[in-house]
Amino acid sequence: MGETGALLTDLYQLTMLQAYFDQGMNDTAVFEFFVRELPAGRSFLVAAGLQQALDYLESLRFSDEELAWLERCGRFSPGFVASLAELRFTGEVAAMPEGTVFFANEPILRVIAPLREAQLVETRLINLLQFQTLVASKAARVRLAAADRLLVDFGLRRAHGAEAALLSARASYLAGFDGSSNVLAAMRWDIPMYGTMAHSFIQAHTDETAAFEHFARSHPRANTLLLDTYDTEAAARTVVPLARKLSADGITIQAVRLDSGDLAEHARRVRAILDAGGLSGVSIFVSGSLDESSVEQLLAAGAPIDGFGVGTRMNTSADRPYLDCVYKLQEYAGAARRKRSEGKATWPGRKQVFRQLDADGRMAGDTLTLEDDAPPGSPLLVPVMRAGRRLAPSPPLQAVRGHASAELARLPDTLRPLSTAAAYPVTVAPALQALTRAVDQKSR
Amino acid sequence: MGETGALLTDLYQLTMLQAYFDQGMNDTAVFEFFVRELPAGRSFLVAAGLQQALDYLESLRFSDEELAWLERCGRFSPGFVASLAELRFTGEVAAMPEGTVFFANEPILRVIAPLREAQLVETRLINLLQFQTLVASKAARVRLAAADRLLVDFGLRRAHGAEAALLSARASYLAGFDGSSNVLAAMRWDIPMYGTMAHSFIQAHTDETAAFEHFARSHPRANTLLLDTYDTEAAARTVVPLARKLSADGITIQAVRLDSGDLAEHARRVRAILDAGGLSGVSIFVSGSLDESSVEQLLAAGAPIDGFGVGTRMNTSADRPYLDCVYKLQEYAGAARRKRSEGKATWPGRKQVFRQLDADGRMAGDTLTLEDDAPPGSPLLVPVMRAGRRLAPSPPLQAVRGHASAELARLPDTLRPLSTAAAYPVTVAPALQALTRAVDQKSR
Repeated sequence: MGETGALLTDLYQLTMLQAYFDQGMNDTAVFEFFVRELPAGRSFLVAAGLQQALDYLESLRFSDEELAWLERCGRFSPGFVASLAELRFTGEVAAMPEGTVFFANEPILRVIAPLREAQLVETRLINLLQFQTLVASKAARVRLAAADRLLVDFGLRRAHGAEAALLSARASYLAGFDGSSNVLAAMRWDIPMYGTMAHSFIQAHTDETAAFEHFARSHPRANTLLLDTYDTEAAARTVVPLARKLSADGITIQAVRLDSGDLAEHARRVRAILDAGGLSGVSIFVSGSLDESSVEQLLAAGAPIDGFGVGTRMNTSADRPYLDCVYKLQEYAGAARRKRSEGKATWPGRKQVFRQLDADGRMAGDTLTLEDDAPPGSPLLVPVMRAGRRLAPSPPLQAVRGHASAELARLPDTLRPLSTAAAYPVTVAPALQALTRAVDQKSR
Repeated sequence: MGETGALLTDLYQLTMLQAYFDQGMNDTAVFEFFVRELPAGRSFLVAAGLQQALDYLESLRFSDEELAWLERCGRFSPGFVASLAELRFTGEVAAMPEGTVFFANEPILRVIAPLREAQLVETRLINLLQFQTLVASKAARVRLAAADRLLVDFGLRRAHGAEAALLSARASYLAGFDGSSNVLAAMRWDIPMYGTMAHSFIQAHTDETAAFEHFARSHPRANTLLLDTYDTEAAARTVVPLARKLSADGITIQAVRLDSGDLAEHARRVRAILDAGGLSGVSIFVSGSLDESSVEQLLAAGAPIDGFGVGTRMNTSADRPYLDCVYKLQEYAGAARRKRSEGKATWPGRKQVFRQLDADGRMAGDTLTLEDDAPPGSPLLVPVMRAGRRLAPSPPLQAVRGHASAELARLPDTLRPLSTAAAYPVTVAPALQALTRAVDQKSR
């Protein structure tokens, strides 16, 4: 997804670069990406999007068409535009591996590069990291709510465009979903595909049972029948004799889907109808405006539900559709820097996050400090790129998914409730506090 | 943006198509896209995304790579996959022009095509139409709040991926924004570009005033100085002598930007400092977590603000990040169809929306009815595609923007308040009610 080109950026990156070019400013800059505050109601976040961020950095270049357009637009000098033709990302990157749980003010990615390169990439790096982190964090909550039930991403249609659809399929799988309805995402990342049928399939037939039968005959090994087009329980009752008939031809009905009304109540009634008809092996899958809280409620009510199709509200992180995240200059030309804007001040310098685990392997507290400090715990940011090239191929998505699952298992019990947010201890080390005072002193 | 391929769809579209293929079902189907309910707090929506939807339909085809993958994945028959190689969209489309104001249950797009084509395109059509409509509707509210102040889209970084960033720049411009910071969107659609500088630009310099001077010298005709990196009013006071110095070289400071703290209060103090320094021509631009309600409050408080950079909350439509929209089968093989699911029932048949205007040219009421009915008012859906080809090129974005502006001018006063939603009269005509009863009768 680096194919969007170098111009997918804010104009101010280019106007700043023109001024840096005119002044000959291009010393080493250190930028860090972090979330200033967790969204209300969230106790943790899950890092995601690093693979696409590195793809972008490795492929960054201005096309001839883009350069010609920049020259024509009249805002930039020919010499500056010529310099952009040569621009590549040549810096180094350290980052938390995708799937790592993190908290406010903890950098999950650090860029060290010549100022112009490090500045230019701000916009797209934020764009890639915030969205997948947002969705992975939401999807992890749905996974916590669903325990071991089947969870499928159904959100392609109401995701915000094509890339959001693809990246939210990836991010939700990474965070513990079992698969996606998104065929292109399945092809691209080898994510398991799930799909049932739409109401239109039933409506296009004059007879609902005929529709079920046609579908099962075309998909003898993977079929989920949608029951709620007209009357859910009436539809369930037609499934019983149909299953008997199909069974004679070696075809097994796998599952039914409920998509409207009181899902817990319908699931109970449908379960009873199916069980009475000898179809206890047919599972019940539900969908329709679901999120972690409705999944939690359905299961708490004891609804006999085997799987959930979770769409829009997960893919758009509907209750919190963005993160208060930034990419900030922390050092330039060897000197630590700091922004002091009201309510938006930052911690200066090259930082690292150290995490301690308790005897049970649960997260017990983080320390935010300078890179060369050595508080207790293990460092979370690791080198991933040098001289503009990855140090190793990005891990396969399956491996990232395994890491995320292990991270969720390490969450302390205090952070697990979904309805109330709890704080996790992140200490700012004395070394970092001292540097902050020194920077303030110097710039007064 | 049709380049995402035919596999950007839900798996169930393909499993249904396999069954239709096996049954030889491919009669003419009529699908309509509409919003079931307006989001809470919204009184109207603005249609957008038609151009991209038609691009998609015109370019729809499965690539060799996609076909090979479908064959390998083991879910589809070779004969069916071979049939997909030939699949093109050959149908007709009627739609409301982009920029048209519309309401719940009013179709804004209707597809009439062989069943398989009409079904396959559901996912991406919803994906394209819902997102731009969502953003255009949000942006129109910001425009109503801002009256004639400058409005710039600043949301690229926290938009949900690349396509969301591009399409939200387009949709917000369409709905009345003056431009965008998104350079690629500017290049693609000739949208005016706006940009200032980041805090990092100030921080990379050791002296804030030197940073301002460098920037102004590099951009003598378009410069906006960011004041809040350390102390907003102190920065404003340095602008006064700097402006005098630059003026000797023929350079004029155009504007300043405030991005944190109490924007109304800072704007007043900065205005006073600038005016006292003879800089009444320097305009004040503000940004930072803005939306229609903060813009409305700032202007109601009399804050001397000339322009707003509105980002994340507009681009993600943060308070309502999705629409309850659907694409439903309304007729198949000449017979009207209807879904009766609880809370999700639809009106059957090929429909049209007729709008009446009052003597002042304001919207006075709509009628939802069958296409061949003739209630008072003018029809809003117009033919845009036949046999899979556009009837005319899509209008230039400037023309769409003009139409949207005219539409907003036609809003009745009851729909203009942003803080409370009001209902607009949409009547379901007797002809449509009669058809609905007939369909229900027949399927009992």
